[in-house]
Amino acid sequence: MIEVITGVADARAVFRDVRGGGNTLGLVPTMGALHAGHISLIERAREENDRVAVTIFVNPTQYDDPADLERYPRTFETDLEKADAAGADLVFAPTYEDLYADAYRFKITEEHISRRLEGAHRAGHFDGVLTVVLKLLNIARPDRAYFGEKDWQQLQLVRDMVEALFVDTEIVQCPIVRETDGLAMSSRNALLSEEHRRLAPRLHSILAAGGEMDEMVSALAAVGFEVDYVECWDGRVLGAVRIGNVRLIDNVEI
Amino acid sequence: MIEVITGVADARAVFRDVRGGGNTLGLVPTMGALHAGHISLIERAREENDRVAVTIFVNPTQYDDPADLERYPRTFETDLEKADAAGADLVFAPTYEDLYADAYRFKITEEHISRRLEGAHRAGHFDGVLTVVLKLLNIARPDRAYFGEKDWQQLQLVRDMVEALFVDTEIVQCPIVRETDGLAMSSRNALLSEEHRRLAPRLHSILAAGGEMDEMVSALAAVGFEVDYVECWDGRVLGAVRIGNVRLIDNVEI
Repeated sequence: MIEVITGVADARAVFRDVRGGGNTLGLVPTMGALHAGHISLIERAREENDRVAVTIFVNPTQYDDPADLERYPRTFETDLEKADAAGADLVFAPTYEDLYADAYRFKITEEHISRRLEGAHRAGHFDGVLTVVLKLLNIARPDRAYFGEKDWQQLQLVRDMVEALFVDTEIVQCPIVRETDGLAMSSRNALLSEEHRRLAPRLHSILAAGGEMDEMVSALAAVGFEVDYVECWDGRVLGAVRIGNVRLIDNVEI
Repeated sequence: MIEVITGVADARAVFRDVRGGGNTLGLVPTMGALHAGHISLIERAREENDRVAVTIFVNPTQYDDPADLERYPRTFETDLEKADAAGADLVFAPTYEDLYADAYRFKITEEHISRRLEGAHRAGHFDGVLTVVLKLLNIARPDRAYFGEKDWQQLQLVRDMVEALFVDTEIVQCPIVRETDGLAMSSRNALLSEEHRRLAPRLHSILAAGGEMDEMVSALAAVGFEVDYVECWDGRVLGAVRIGNVRLIDNVEI
């Protein structure tokens, strides 16, 4: 069965052993509730590294909405089985107290890209993301870390941070995995009502159809989405919408 | 002669070689203008590590006052000789463009301790300090890094940051080195006029004499100092004063 580590000190020792043996290490940071998107990251890491670790941690510092944090799906036992089946060697699932022994006094901030798009709608979101990613990278010191393109803005920020701070890890970018109807895989999809689940793929199809930004916004609103934004950035069209109490994001190449 | 590296990519390769050979590495981050305080750090590092590196970089992001940055003494050739004589194996002296290729988009912030004392008088100072220290630690990945107690608040913040972000370096704290008249060694001492140099040791003697904070402030003002602060914190009395256009700090155990 897959090895599970919860303590940071234990994790540092285990990761030191892994690296000390001359093995390469691939890290897949997740918030759990693993789906086919995560599995694709683990499988990619499995192909490219001697050892693969998955982190499972629902990071409170990246949530500005406590209700959103509360609702986020927790499926730890199933996650372990899925990570094991996908070829991970170990799961690191720290506690908040252990990972944030500093009570989040120290944070990584970025004041340009991180204030746009997702950052404009979720105050402090990327400070929390960047801080937890840096902590996890420093604990594990992986050769490679795997991030999905669904969180496009996060991916660019993590990559830029790693470069700016000279973290010795390669950030590997992996394509979005979609349901057969086009809906991007997301842990939050499980929270959709049956009716909203039927409507959800329209986010992708409307972004993929292209056109003017305001036409896309109108089309999304006509479906019943509340639209946070639709914007062109970094060679992509990115959109974020809410339906019921679920927030969905997606992006497509222009 | 001592090895000098200026490129970050070169430095990462050299430091990787050092660590790869199983050698321990001690790092002494400085802004140059090396004095006996720095030498004591290098000698301590020499005793405790197989290899010793000194970084020389006058970090613009920790200055809120361009004139102060401009005036800061630059004595690079002499620094190399002193570092060599003290037993350093290499000097890493990066350019701003190389170290801040991100144009300082990414920074480390701390919003409690860093806003007090020095932080209250030098806007953004500790953001700059923490960010450059993290960059240097990530480039060199030393086993130990050496900081002097003269910058007491900086020392505590660096130590707390390293712990909070799980950086795998031990922060070694080294005592203040003083002139025979009690003045704490500082690169800025070279900027003092003859008259101000004679008065400067009074900062130490007044802090060391103890008493009420406002009495110390009055005594310092009577000498001719402009007083930024005198405060008890973390088991020390810390003071910062200005005389002419030179700013001096010091601290003593309570």
